[in-house]
Amino acid sequence: MANQGDTGLIIDPFYATYPTTLRSAGLKPKMVRTVPEDNFIPSVSELTKNAKNAKTLLINSPNNPTGTVYDKSNLFEISKVAIENDLWVISDEVYDTQIWVGKHISIRSVANMENRTAVIGSMSKSHAMTGSRLGWVVAPEQVIEKLSDLACNTNYGVPGFIQDAGLYALTQMPNIEKTVAEPFFRRREIAQKIIKECPYIRMHPSLGGMYLMLDIRATGLNGIEFSKALLEATNIAVMPGESFGESSAGHIRVAMTISDDKFEYATRSICSFASNFTTSTN
Amino acid sequence: MANQGDTGLIIDPFYATYPTTLRSAGLKPKMVRTVPEDNFIPSVSELTKNAKNAKTLLINSPNNPTGTVYDKSNLFEISKVAIENDLWVISDEVYDTQIWVGKHISIRSVANMENRTAVIGSMSKSHAMTGSRLGWVVAPEQVIEKLSDLACNTNYGVPGFIQDAGLYALTQMPNIEKTVAEPFFRRREIAQKIIKECPYIRMHPSLGGMYLMLDIRATGLNGIEFSKALLEATNIAVMPGESFGESSAGHIRVAMTISDDKFEYATRSICSFASNFTTSTN
Repeated sequence: MANQGDTGLIIDPFYATYPTTLRSAGLKPKMVRTVPEDNFIPSVSELTKNAKNAKTLLINSPNNPTGTVYDKSNLFEISKVAIENDLWVISDEVYDTQIWVGKHISIRSVANMENRTAVIGSMSKSHAMTGSRLGWVVAPEQVIEKLSDLACNTNYGVPGFIQDAGLYALTQMPNIEKTVAEPFFRRREIAQKIIKECPYIRMHPSLGGMYLMLDIRATGLNGIEFSKALLEATNIAVMPGESFGESSAGHIRVAMTISDDKFEYATRSICSFASNFTTSTN
Repeated sequence: MANQGDTGLIIDPFYATYPTTLRSAGLKPKMVRTVPEDNFIPSVSELTKNAKNAKTLLINSPNNPTGTVYDKSNLFEISKVAIENDLWVISDEVYDTQIWVGKHISIRSVANMENRTAVIGSMSKSHAMTGSRLGWVVAPEQVIEKLSDLACNTNYGVPGFIQDAGLYALTQMPNIEKTVAEPFFRRREIAQKIIKECPYIRMHPSLGGMYLMLDIRATGLNGIEFSKALLEATNIAVMPGESFGESSAGHIRVAMTISDDKFEYATRSICSFASNFTTSTN
């Protein structure tokens, strides 16, 4: 895909380890900025501007941290830029079973993308097997050969008994996926109702995945300040948007990974906490 | 320890993935030859000759594939070369609980080696947890920091439930180690008795580990020819010495990992198979 020192593009906001993962493979990470007003979907102009001299583009839909899901036309635009600039696309699709609106489309299925796409899959999210480190890559044969060599010379692959567990989980399809995904859909609806009534917080649509991105810029605080103050005042931990890149500054990321009642209580607390702040600034 | 393109030394014979493991970290592997007559222990002259311009030296005692165990004076000589040439020593000690003669000494315990040694440990052999991929490195803090970064950006480390299993196994110490090691000691004794009576095969002492290195040069065959013919004639699989480097050409490596009765039968079969060959060449 690329050689030592080549540039690899990442859509900002991004999952926190993406830049260092590219660096550990010898690539120079470069961020493609997005804006909250476009729901963090990369524009053709930003993509094109950065694609010169780059070799790879890492995308993630459904997205952690934003909950954004790329639709057919988004993926078509991305594929056009990839083909024009001869980029490999690394498509992290680990949240593919958690779609709340529309449906999941892999960029690998877009015309002429099959030979320049590596799709990352995992049992972590779809089957709640996060701790098992069980995943896969779908890519052209020459890429798989290299990955196979790498696995053989680092850790020899995934323990056999974990592969057995994965096989068992896969044979329970598709109901187990729905069972795992359903609580996040439910909690997203809880949050939608609460945040709609919350004047100083805007919730991004969150079309998929287990995270919500909340715009807290109306409080006058940045994401780091807000998260820190929230933690101290309420013992509720959220991630500042800034930890996922500059594009999500002034936001906080909420993980919907606690029970419904705790989640509802925490969401209400975040809302009233935000209101306090704006009262004092207004 | 080293930078892209630096040379890393490996003692030949070596475990088959060592060269590619170094290469995957960007090092150029270089072999330090040994001879069967010295029981595959590296000489100071060979080490010194290769140490110029090298940055790391990978050693493995008890040794796979030879069963060689480095004693105090071997380790002292190696340490002298390492210090004089400013080499890091990577010491693979995963067979440290399987010593049949003498005792295991880590090169890290040799004077002035603590700050230039990384010891590789594992539950694979000591606790028969091969499939779990659970191991560790003992090294100076700056090395551990880099390894920790690498783990974080590749697979996030070992699954928690495997770490729990490892912790359980470690609290059963030391008896579980003896229980796991004992069959290999027993089978080594079986092999010693059989091979002593076998005129065309010489058995290296095998001071530790779960493998035997048998010198089959008297048969007139090399290790690859012998292994292939043996497999076809008897369905017994051994590894040709050549797959571990040039120093163990004309040898075969026997894994003592089958039940005592099968092992005894297989060893006798190897012996009579070798005798057939020499009759035809004599």
